[in-house]
Amino acid sequence: MAPTEELRRLQSHLERMPPVAALQVAVAGFDGSRLQLQAPLAANVNDKGCAFGGSLAGLMTLAGWGLVNLALVRGGQFGEVYVADSQIRYLAPLFEDLQAEAELADGQDWSSFLDSFGQRGKARIGVQACVRDSTGRVVAELTGRYAAFRGAP
Amino acid sequence: MAPTEELRRLQSHLERMPPVAALQVAVAGFDGSRLQLQAPLAANVNDKGCAFGGSLAGLMTLAGWGLVNLALVRGGQFGEVYVADSQIRYLAPLFEDLQAEAELADGQDWSSFLDSFGQRGKARIGVQACVRDSTGRVVAELTGRYAAFRGAP
Repeated sequence: MAPTEELRRLQSHLERMPPVAALQVAVAGFDGSRLQLQAPLAANVNDKGCAFGGSLAGLMTLAGWGLVNLALVRGGQFGEVYVADSQIRYLAPLFEDLQAEAELADGQDWSSFLDSFGQRGKARIGVQACVRDSTGRVVAELTGRYAAFRGAP
Repeated sequence: MAPTEELRRLQSHLERMPPVAALQVAVAGFDGSRLQLQAPLAANVNDKGCAFGGSLAGLMTLAGWGLVNLALVRGGQFGEVYVADSQIRYLAPLFEDLQAEAELADGQDWSSFLDSFGQRGKARIGVQACVRDSTGRVVAELTGRYAAFRGAP
């Protein structure tokens, strides 16, 4: 399956979730290791004219979730992915459209995750994500763990 | 100012934020120390029929934000409140409408926060929040710190 087809399916997956559709989240790119999502400021603005903290958290959480979904699909596996926990730091207000990117956390590897999932039907993986402004400065960051299950959790 | 007037203003404040309005967040109650917010599952559902993790995170984050806003107002102070960081644990899927409640974190007190804000025009406070299902079981929990500023952060 071509990366573009995987991303089209991920976009369709996101659009089927009403809160994600409301925040106008879109897949922005995937380079094989890093997934980028975006959302317009207008749909995610707070009372101060900058990005709502819940939208920053949601977009980073979704970027990680999408990354783990892509890893399963690319590994030939099918399962449901849930976020298990996260730590978020909000570093500066963002007065621009939101761009989040997620990648594997330091010390984690996909092959162990996929092996474990293949053998046990469930596995956990650590992900890190951030939102940068247009100058490249990180304005929010997340580390989180996701759990994937072949059946119900 | 009567508590009902404070809550009406908080509700109006929430409705002016497009992403919060989209998730249909409403003030559900305040007993003087604990703020409750709610949101319908239909506007916050994921692809698995349960509450979207980003909505759980957003609702708990907002409940803490609203709690700190109410504390400032009730303390006769005016300022902008921002979430600084949070740790979230997702414990079980929720197949019902979302109900979040926030209160002061253990070891924190409002008088120190208000004194500091009054003297320095800025202060930080720790909050804890959770989402329970209709049986009272905690399905997600958050601890976070919020920063209040009289002027710009």
